[in-house]
Amino acid sequence: MDAEIISVGTELVLGQVTNTNIPLLARTLSTLDIKAPHQVTVMDDQEQIVTAIDNARQRASLIFVCGGLGPTTDDVTLKSTAAALGTGLKTDDQHWEWIKGTFKARRIEMLPENIQQARYLAGGTPLANPVGLALGSWYEQDGLVVVVLPGPPAEFRAMLEESVQPRLVEKYGTGRRIASRTLNFWGRPESQLMDEIEAATEQFQDMTVTSYVQPSQIQVRINVYDLPTAQANDLLDQVTAAILAVERPYFFGVGDKCTLVAEVVEQLRARRQTITGAESLTGGLFQSTICSVPGASNVFNGGFVTYAAGAKEKLLGIEPEVIAKHGVVSSQTAAQMAEKSRELLDADFALSFTGVAGPDDLEGHPAGTVWLGLAHRGQPTKTKELHLAAYLGRQAVRNLSVQYGLQMVFQALQG
Amino acid sequence: MDAEIISVGTELVLGQVTNTNIPLLARTLSTLDIKAPHQVTVMDDQEQIVTAIDNARQRASLIFVCGGLGPTTDDVTLKSTAAALGTGLKTDDQHWEWIKGTFKARRIEMLPENIQQARYLAGGTPLANPVGLALGSWYEQDGLVVVVLPGPPAEFRAMLEESVQPRLVEKYGTGRRIASRTLNFWGRPESQLMDEIEAATEQFQDMTVTSYVQPSQIQVRINVYDLPTAQANDLLDQVTAAILAVERPYFFGVGDKCTLVAEVVEQLRARRQTITGAESLTGGLFQSTICSVPGASNVFNGGFVTYAAGAKEKLLGIEPEVIAKHGVVSSQTAAQMAEKSRELLDADFALSFTGVAGPDDLEGHPAGTVWLGLAHRGQPTKTKELHLAAYLGRQAVRNLSVQYGLQMVFQALQG
Repeated sequence: MDAEIISVGTELVLGQVTNTNIPLLARTLSTLDIKAPHQVTVMDDQEQIVTAIDNARQRASLIFVCGGLGPTTDDVTLKSTAAALGTGLKTDDQHWEWIKGTFKARRIEMLPENIQQARYLAGGTPLANPVGLALGSWYEQDGLVVVVLPGPPAEFRAMLEESVQPRLVEKYGTGRRIASRTLNFWGRPESQLMDEIEAATEQFQDMTVTSYVQPSQIQVRINVYDLPTAQANDLLDQVTAAILAVERPYFFGVGDKCTLVAEVVEQLRARRQTITGAESLTGGLFQSTICSVPGASNVFNGGFVTYAAGAKEKLLGIEPEVIAKHGVVSSQTAAQMAEKSRELLDADFALSFTGVAGPDDLEGHPAGTVWLGLAHRGQPTKTKELHLAAYLGRQAVRNLSVQYGLQMVFQALQG
Repeated sequence: MDAEIISVGTELVLGQVTNTNIPLLARTLSTLDIKAPHQVTVMDDQEQIVTAIDNARQRASLIFVCGGLGPTTDDVTLKSTAAALGTGLKTDDQHWEWIKGTFKARRIEMLPENIQQARYLAGGTPLANPVGLALGSWYEQDGLVVVVLPGPPAEFRAMLEESVQPRLVEKYGTGRRIASRTLNFWGRPESQLMDEIEAATEQFQDMTVTSYVQPSQIQVRINVYDLPTAQANDLLDQVTAAILAVERPYFFGVGDKCTLVAEVVEQLRARRQTITGAESLTGGLFQSTICSVPGASNVFNGGFVTYAAGAKEKLLGIEPEVIAKHGVVSSQTAAQMAEKSRELLDADFALSFTGVAGPDDLEGHPAGTVWLGLAHRGQPTKTKELHLAAYLGRQAVRNLSVQYGLQMVFQALQG
C-alpha cells in the first residue's frame, strides 16, 4: 500500500524552514511497511492543495496533508482539503469551549478566527492536539484515507504518536510481516562494503539488505519477510553470521540507535575502566563526543586540548626533543600525548589526535594526515596513521578522526 | 518563472534523513525572485524519476534534480534524467583522471563504478564538485533548464554556491534588482525579535525583512527592490540602523556566512589576544568549536576538559572547599575554573562551563541549569547563569551553552 505526504506551507516552499515532519512520518509509516514513494510540498494556496490531493489520489490510498491549520487567512489547508474531497467542515463544540477557556486562563485576547482550529472534515473524526490548539482530521471515503495534521513540529509529533499511529496500526498493521536487524559498521567505503555483503548473502531468499550512510557509521539493515518469528530470527542470525564472516573488523554493534561512541562508553562502563584524551587537531571533539553519551561520567573524568606545540609541552610534559626531531604530526608525538595524558589522569585508556585538519599543509604533510595514539594501562602504546579526504573540509577531517579513534579503542576493548 | 525541485533518495522517502538541501536551494532561488511552488521527493527509481521530470516540465521551466549521484547501482539519477530528456551521458576525462589520482593519493582501492561520478548529461555542461567526487550537470533544451546536483549536504551547498548560483544569476538575474544584507543575532526568541524588527522598520518602503533560524543564530535578511546601487545601499544602511537601534545587544555580524565563533576568533586575532577554556558539561565542545575556524591556532593554544569534580581539582587546582561549599553548579566554581585555566595557559581570556546537561538533575539543579565564567586578563571575572530548555535534549543544552558562552566573550570584546 502506498501513501503520499503533502506538506503545505509557503515558508517550506521558500526554504525558510526545514521540514522535519516528513522524516518523522515516513519512519512511522516504514515500520508498518507503508511506503510514501512520493512526497510533495506546496504553498498555502487552495488551488495547489486541491491539485496535489487530486494527483495523490491517482497514486495512493493513504494521503497525509500536513500544515496550514492556524487561525489566519493564510491557513487554507482544511477548507481546501474539504473542497478536494467534496465534503464540508464541522465544528467540535467541546473543543471550541476548551479553546475559549484556554485563552481566558492565559489572559490573552482570542480572535473570532480561532474557531477555525476547532473544525475538522465533516464525515471524519477529529484528532486531539495534545500540545496545541488546532484539531487534526481522520477521514475515510471509498477506501481512501486522508489524514490532516498541524505543521508545528511539536504538535505534529504529539498528534502523530498519540492519535494517528494507533489508528494506522489498527487499519494497516495486518499486512506483511517484517522482521529486521540493523548492523553498524565503520571504516569501510559504502560501495565496497555493500558489494562484499551482496556477494556474501546471495544464497539467501525472502530477505533484503539495504544500507544507509551517516557521517559516523554505515547502517546495514537486514529485512526478512513473511516468516514465523522463530524462523525469521533464525534467518536473521544466519544472514548476520554470513555478513560478519567477511566484515567483522568493521562491525561495532546491532540496532538502529547504536553508535560507536555509545558502544565504547558502555563497554568501558561494564569493565569499570576509564578513558581520557589529548587532542590537537580535533580540539576537544573526541572528549565532547564521549560526553554526548548519557552516563559518560562513569568512564570519563577529564582531559586535555593541546592545540599548539607549547601546550603539548606545558600541559602534558611532552619532551621538546621529540617534537623537534619527529614533528608534531608523527607517531612519536601521538604516542607521547597518549601516554602522558593517561598517566596524568591515571586512566585505563588515553587516545591522542595530532595531524593536519587543513586547509593548509603542516610540516610538509598534506591536510588529512592524522596520527592517532592509544595508550592502554599495562600494554604497549599503539599508533595509527590516517590519510583522510581533505577535500571534504576541515570539519569532516576532524569528525572522521574522532570516529577512527573510537574504532581503535573499540578494537582494543575486543582484544 | 517557476522552478521545481525534485529530491531523489530512498533514504529521504523512508525518513532516514532530513532534507536540508531544499531550504538552501529555495532560499537561493528566492533571492532571484524565482519560486519553486512544487517540491517533490521520489525514491532511487528510474520510473519515478522520469515521471517526476515529465510532470515538472508541465509546470516549470527550471528543474532541479538532487541526489543519487553516487557510484553504486542504487544511484540512477543521472541516467534516469538523461532518459527523461532523451539524451545520453558523457564522461569528463579530466575529472576521471582526477578521481583516480585522488584514490591513489589516499591509498584506497577504486571501483570501476566510480567512473559514473565523472559523467554528466550529454549536450550539457559538467558542474565541478569542490568537496566531493561526483560531477553535477547543467542542461538546456528548448527553453527548459535542468540542473542535476549531488545529495550530500556539503557537496550540494558547495556546488550550488560556486557553480549554480552564478549561472542562475546570469540567466535569470535580469528581472527584478534585489540588493540584500544579512544581519546575525543570538540570544533572542525569533518571534520576539521579528515582532520588534517589524515595528522598527514599518516606515520603510520597497523592502522586506525575513528571518531564518539556525541552531546557532537567527539570520535576518533585508531585501531592497528595484533601486540604483547607491540608493539601495543607502536604504540598506537606514534599515540596518533602525534594526540595530533596538536589537544591538543581540547582534554579532553581517553576512550569510557570518558565525558567532568566527567573529570571536577574528576579533581576538585582530587584537593579538588568546583564549582558553575549562569545560565540564560541554566536555570540549567549546574548544572544538573554536578550532572549527581556520586560523584558530592564532588565538587558541589549548585548554582543559574537567568533567568530574576530581579533574577540576587536579588539572586546574580548584580549591576543594569551593566545590564543597558551593557545589560544582555554581558561580564560584565557574569563576575559579575560568581564572585557573586562564592563568595556567597565560591566556587573555578563559571561558568556563559547568552545569547540568541532563537528563538527570545534579546537586538539586534541574537539567538546563548552566553557569558560565569569563576570566579576562586585568579585569574582574564575570559569571552568568543560564536556564536552558532541557526538553530539547542533552546535546542541545551543550550546544546552546557554547553559543551563550561565545556571546559573553563577544560582548566583552566590544567593551
